[in-house]
Amino acid sequence: MKKTLLLCLLAASFTACQQNNNTQAAVAEQATKPSTPLQVVNDTIHLVQPDTTLTTTLMHTLSHRSSIREYAQTQLDNETLSTLLWAANGINRPENGKRTAPSAVNAQDIVLYVTMDMGTFVYLPKEHALQLVCTTDLRKAVAHTQDFAAVAPLSIILVSDLTKFPFDDPQRATLLGAMDAGYVSQNIYLYCAADNLATVARGTMDKAAIQQALQLTDKQIPMLNHPVGYIK
Amino acid sequence: MKKTLLLCLLAASFTACQQNNNTQAAVAEQATKPSTPLQVVNDTIHLVQPDTTLTTTLMHTLSHRSSIREYAQTQLDNETLSTLLWAANGINRPENGKRTAPSAVNAQDIVLYVTMDMGTFVYLPKEHALQLVCTTDLRKAVAHTQDFAAVAPLSIILVSDLTKFPFDDPQRATLLGAMDAGYVSQNIYLYCAADNLATVARGTMDKAAIQQALQLTDKQIPMLNHPVGYIK
Repeated sequence: MKKTLLLCLLAASFTACQQNNNTQAAVAEQATKPSTPLQVVNDTIHLVQPDTTLTTTLMHTLSHRSSIREYAQTQLDNETLSTLLWAANGINRPENGKRTAPSAVNAQDIVLYVTMDMGTFVYLPKEHALQLVCTTDLRKAVAHTQDFAAVAPLSIILVSDLTKFPFDDPQRATLLGAMDAGYVSQNIYLYCAADNLATVARGTMDKAAIQQALQLTDKQIPMLNHPVGYIK
Repeated sequence: MKKTLLLCLLAASFTACQQNNNTQAAVAEQATKPSTPLQVVNDTIHLVQPDTTLTTTLMHTLSHRSSIREYAQTQLDNETLSTLLWAANGINRPENGKRTAPSAVNAQDIVLYVTMDMGTFVYLPKEHALQLVCTTDLRKAVAHTQDFAAVAPLSIILVSDLTKFPFDDPQRATLLGAMDAGYVSQNIYLYCAADNLATVARGTMDKAAIQQALQLTDKQIPMLNHPVGYIK
């Protein structure tokens, strides 16, 4: 019994040590990696290649996944936003355009919008770029009744485009769209946990204001949003 | 231009090399880690501690996430099933019982059932154990019209318990339950990608047969299932 306890303590201390090493490694990586400011050229933000060399393990990431509601106001750099969007719903198999997140019947219905002081942009996975949709900063509409969310330097809005489903059943499509939003949202959570970013998934938002600003139809449904920032 | 191309090729070859190293490391880890058979004692399978030392990085995992529909028939060992269930929806913050997967209003509505030749079990996150629900192997009911799914040594059924939501609005609860199933399903995909397991998320299943066998009420909704096996 004593031996088991000792083994447990040793295992726990090894795991804690490994987790600290993981966090320290991620912080050290952040301190040395390139940091390019986001720049709009011809209504487009060209994203650099996602950084797939980040060394944080999946298990460390799962151990540290949580909802964080406080954010530093510093804007994310191009490298970080690029990797975040690729992790969220980017193309991981260029030969067939399939994604890091699955979708029901491979509908690829989830469209990501990024809103920040420079305006609101749609993420184009094939081009790995952000295209300007409107010059309005929608962070207050995203925050709605919860001021903390407007502090983050950007928010990602997850919209399900129900027209991508190959059947005409709005109720079923909405259910599958919600499920698909969950997949992408978990990817956002996990990348943030792996790269020392803060985020929380929220259903609260001023949907009418967002739908109007982004000129969405009634078949393009804002499902969730994620304020994202560096940890305060 | 040539310099950029060369840099891109170098980066791609470095990434590919690192990805191979990751895969080789995971295979080597699998070959050396303990392998305890699953055993039912007093209607319970006690799961060993999840192995949080698996070295596969999150980025490697996201690069390799995909749906796989062919499975070796070998039963998963206790170590693998333990880590899979913890990764899916286990407790990552013992101080407050919070999970690797978030849930709307922290309802923790997703309940995991594991069905295999020994019967069908419910996963208890606090006890990190599987408790027998019925001695019926429901893999054929899970596979339903798609025979490939019945080949896997086990399937995980993701049920949303709508009574966990603190409001009486079945339509909203179902939508949130679907979203929450997406979170857990992505965790299953990612752990499988990280540990060389095969899986696919499926909406198809004989829901009536499953609801009857598990004695579910009409507020406990089977949302998705995941056949899981070693790669064939």
